[in-house]
Amino acid sequence: MNDVTKELLRTVSELDGLPKGAYNIRENGHCASRNCTEKINIVSKTDKPGIDIIVKPGTKYETVYIPAIVTESDVDDLVYNDFYIGEDADITIVAGCGVHTDGTGNSQHNGIHRFFLRKNSRVLYLEKHIGTGEGTGERIINPETYMELGENSYMEMDTLQIKGVDSSKRVTEGTLAANAKLIIREKIMTHGNQTAETIFKVDLNGNKSGADVISRSVARDSSKQIFRSTINGNADCSGHTECDAIIMDNGVVSAIPELTANHVDAALIHEAAIGKIAGEQLTKLMTLGLSEAEGEAKIIEGFLK
Amino acid sequence: MNDVTKELLRTVSELDGLPKGAYNIRENGHCASRNCTEKINIVSKTDKPGIDIIVKPGTKYETVYIPAIVTESDVDDLVYNDFYIGEDADITIVAGCGVHTDGTGNSQHNGIHRFFLRKNSRVLYLEKHIGTGEGTGERIINPETYMELGENSYMEMDTLQIKGVDSSKRVTEGTLAANAKLIIREKIMTHGNQTAETIFKVDLNGNKSGADVISRSVARDSSKQIFRSTINGNADCSGHTECDAIIMDNGVVSAIPELTANHVDAALIHEAAIGKIAGEQLTKLMTLGLSEAEGEAKIIEGFLK
Repeated sequence: MNDVTKELLRTVSELDGLPKGAYNIRENGHCASRNCTEKINIVSKTDKPGIDIIVKPGTKYETVYIPAIVTESDVDDLVYNDFYIGEDADITIVAGCGVHTDGTGNSQHNGIHRFFLRKNSRVLYLEKHIGTGEGTGERIINPETYMELGENSYMEMDTLQIKGVDSSKRVTEGTLAANAKLIIREKIMTHGNQTAETIFKVDLNGNKSGADVISRSVARDSSKQIFRSTINGNADCSGHTECDAIIMDNGVVSAIPELTANHVDAALIHEAAIGKIAGEQLTKLMTLGLSEAEGEAKIIEGFLK
Repeated sequence: MNDVTKELLRTVSELDGLPKGAYNIRENGHCASRNCTEKINIVSKTDKPGIDIIVKPGTKYETVYIPAIVTESDVDDLVYNDFYIGEDADITIVAGCGVHTDGTGNSQHNGIHRFFLRKNSRVLYLEKHIGTGEGTGERIINPETYMELGENSYMEMDTLQIKGVDSSKRVTEGTLAANAKLIIREKIMTHGNQTAETIFKVDLNGNKSGADVISRSVARDSSKQIFRSTINGNADCSGHTECDAIIMDNGVVSAIPELTANHVDAALIHEAAIGKIAGEQLTKLMTLGLSEAEGEAKIIEGFLK
């Protein structure tokens, strides 16, 4: 593992060296290191690049690390990872991604993740994305996430795009059976000429299922962001989406949520707010001795926390 | 004027006979009656069906009635009405539409209205739509409204689709110059197998311009409604859209708002909520002695008021 890989791993997975427990570290399109445990098996796919992560029923308090790192230019990594979460399991998955280029070629990672949550299972899914390096090549991350939440299951997805990613298109889709709950928290900051597009689609198919999608974003410089979300209420269910965005400089943000109630007992709510940093908030911090730039940084830090 | 026309006029324009002041009553695709005043001129178009309504600068406290009535089957009425509102004018426009069919053929009205508001002018625009009659033909109303709001002008549009309209597609677009304000209030109730689609698009081009779009809708039986709204903030401006919908029976409602901030000083907000009548509210009315149906009717009446 070279220094760039180590640094990216530290940032996206908070790993200092190899983790305990189950993990699969992907580096420049290949498996760099893997470990299985008694309850969590990781198997390479035979038909395409990627792995199956099989979590036995009843597995509790284990964490699986599956970071993917691209440290070279001219890499276009595509990987299919499938997660099979057994009944009554309760686990954490850390799936960060870092792309680095010092050259003129692009450094790209496309991770296509599918989750199959069996009855009563719970997953906390953490995903951090970052781009680094001095090269002129683009740093591109296009994650796709598909989730099938079985009866009474629970999934929480925390996704964070910190900085340095020139282009990202994020597709996240979920279908929920009875009593299933899906929580999605997304935080994105773009700068320079970056573009970021987010597409959520949630089908609430089971009675008493529920989804809560909260997106917070900051668009600086001349960056552009699009937030699309679709929630279909097909049963006695509840859905909520929220998109709060701060624009700065010449940043542009579009929020396009879509709610459809196909069932009389579906209750759906959407909120969106786009604007610049409130003047009073900034003035207050400046009277406390901060410069304008420091004040803005503080407010954005709080907003994305 | 036959009894059906009189009854429809009463409902959509609150007119009992001919109004005072300027008016143009359209019946089954033709001008049934017209009156101009010293300050408001109404002229037939020569190139296509429709009229130009020319309001002199400084005209105050006048009301123009331009109801359109279709009382026969197999009528597909298409009309282009253009409103030229002079500087500093302050007027009310009542533009209801009623379609009636007792036969098997459709009764349809398509009104394409354009508004050109000069500097400092103000318009209150009222529009009520209703369908009546015992025929199996469809009652169809497709209004299109285009508004150019000049500097410091103000337009308020109140639109109400009461009942009996089998199909409606409503397109409403506005562009706003500096300091212009646009307020849109829409109320729609659908029942049976009716469909209603609403498409709003507002471009906030001038500094300190503002738009507020509020839609309230009730979808009963197997009716379907789609609410689309787009607000583009292209200047130092503020925009707000809100869509509240009550679904009953097998009613279906989609809300698809779109906010885009293209300017750092644009502040845009959207809210949407779709759901059935709150159980507690209904229970409370029922403990006061109302039946469930009476309680529901009361709540909906209040919601659409």
